[in-house]
Amino acid sequence: MGSWLEGKTLAKKIKEKVKNDVALYLKQKKEVPGLAAILVGENRASKIYLRTKERNCERLGIHSEILCFPKDIEASLLKAKIEELNSREDVDSILVQLPLPSLFNAPEIIASIHPEKDVDGVHPFNLGNLMMNQEGLKPCTPLGIIELLKSREIPIAGKRVVIIGRSRLVGKPLAAMVTNENGTVTICHSKTENLPQVSSEADILVGAIGRGAFITPEFVKPGAVVVDVGMNNLTDKSKVEQMFGQDEKRLKDLREKGYTLIGDVHPQVIDKAEFLTPVPGGVGPLTVAMLMKNTLEAFKQRRNLA
Amino acid sequence: MGSWLEGKTLAKKIKEKVKNDVALYLKQKKEVPGLAAILVGENRASKIYLRTKERNCERLGIHSEILCFPKDIEASLLKAKIEELNSREDVDSILVQLPLPSLFNAPEIIASIHPEKDVDGVHPFNLGNLMMNQEGLKPCTPLGIIELLKSREIPIAGKRVVIIGRSRLVGKPLAAMVTNENGTVTICHSKTENLPQVSSEADILVGAIGRGAFITPEFVKPGAVVVDVGMNNLTDKSKVEQMFGQDEKRLKDLREKGYTLIGDVHPQVIDKAEFLTPVPGGVGPLTVAMLMKNTLEAFKQRRNLA
Repeated sequence: MGSWLEGKTLAKKIKEKVKNDVALYLKQKKEVPGLAAILVGENRASKIYLRTKERNCERLGIHSEILCFPKDIEASLLKAKIEELNSREDVDSILVQLPLPSLFNAPEIIASIHPEKDVDGVHPFNLGNLMMNQEGLKPCTPLGIIELLKSREIPIAGKRVVIIGRSRLVGKPLAAMVTNENGTVTICHSKTENLPQVSSEADILVGAIGRGAFITPEFVKPGAVVVDVGMNNLTDKSKVEQMFGQDEKRLKDLREKGYTLIGDVHPQVIDKAEFLTPVPGGVGPLTVAMLMKNTLEAFKQRRNLA
Repeated sequence: MGSWLEGKTLAKKIKEKVKNDVALYLKQKKEVPGLAAILVGENRASKIYLRTKERNCERLGIHSEILCFPKDIEASLLKAKIEELNSREDVDSILVQLPLPSLFNAPEIIASIHPEKDVDGVHPFNLGNLMMNQEGLKPCTPLGIIELLKSREIPIAGKRVVIIGRSRLVGKPLAAMVTNENGTVTICHSKTENLPQVSSEADILVGAIGRGAFITPEFVKPGAVVVDVGMNNLTDKSKVEQMFGQDEKRLKDLREKGYTLIGDVHPQVIDKAEFLTPVPGGVGPLTVAMLMKNTLEAFKQRRNLA
């Protein structure tokens, strides 16, 4: 039986530090970092995430604004809005909440963010710098994962790290970070053959594929560290009970919200792993904490305060 | 006993096509693609490579020029020269021959090349686009490897691909290409633990670590496809004889040049692999062919001829 590897305490510590620094810069420079977020369309999960980000900014003294656009806004207009944010002195960081409605060419929209303000680290220029182990803004979730592992002194150098999922925000940038940390990384995805066998080679296994409870114990080497990046809504009560028994919190979720949030990793994996990050309460809080930290970093970089 | 997977025939075919296209554009547009190469210092291998590139340009009707600078040129001056090439209409592609003398910050110099003219595909913007499977110029050696595998109908999708080496020009971009081709890639390097065991999982094994004959049969799964990117000079006669017996060509190399070119893969691997690329004559010719093709691509892109 392994231990739950929670992210909340570390997230709190990171945000505490950001809050103090923000207060310090306010005193010294009479300025605070500013985050602008763009939401296109009506994705409910996106709205929840953005509200969380906004609330965190408030608590840390960071200025934030959310710009909402209808799902049928012209791409050219959206890019013009981003250009406006690029040139605003008081906006240090810009994020486009993903996913964009499918009509948009997401890479094209993202590429219009100035790399210096690309707080999610998803502009090609920043991703290329990450790949080459150069300075630059880096995606928040992978940053949070690396911080979490380091905070528990879980070694990465020389170790086998298997990432299931190759997304822009998680899988690919995390693979680059692992290589930069001298880990031996394998990137798996839907086309990988013999996936349970490949993932069983991992000392550190990361689930970032977006399929609820997909990663069962057969995917896991005994004693592995398992990081669960998934965020999936489970609505089926019999499945919830199968997975969590009569867990009061889960059943309350179902009653009140109609779903409970689960990861890509089946909770049974805790019996086989050394560590498993819970969902919720694992990687999620760290993503937000790193977003706050990145916003502060962008603020400092733009003013040569590093 | 496996087969040698030569690159020459495919390289010739690719260059033939480039040559025809160049001739066509010369007729239609009265313009030819132009390649400018920058050499800093006196690295002998770099000079040989550049001469090969120059000769290939000549044969294909591509304009080329090599700009040589002393090893102690100011970085600011070097960047100014690159800026000049960035703005020249007749220069479609720019390459900085690597390695630069160690005093230079190579990433900084490379980042001053305009991404549209970055024929080696090593500008962060191009690497980021590659990572995200977007359009853009891509590094020549990995492009050549993918072309070679495809030309022999060696499947990549779903297969295990292990790359030993994480360089800017080969290991990292090749890993991105393999992921884009739906392969399952593992990136190994000097810090990887149990390297022979990890590399034995590969259906396709790529040696790009820069250590002569380092990859011995114990690294290789029986029937694997092995791609050798290494270029190492072997000067020790007893080692040459140990590796190649009384091979006339190798002994002649030693007598006439004082060395023979060997890869990262020990030639004995041919007994265990299904395919092995020879050195010389494997990946090398493809790198040059892809450089020619990339120069033509840059020419077309800049004129919207795609």
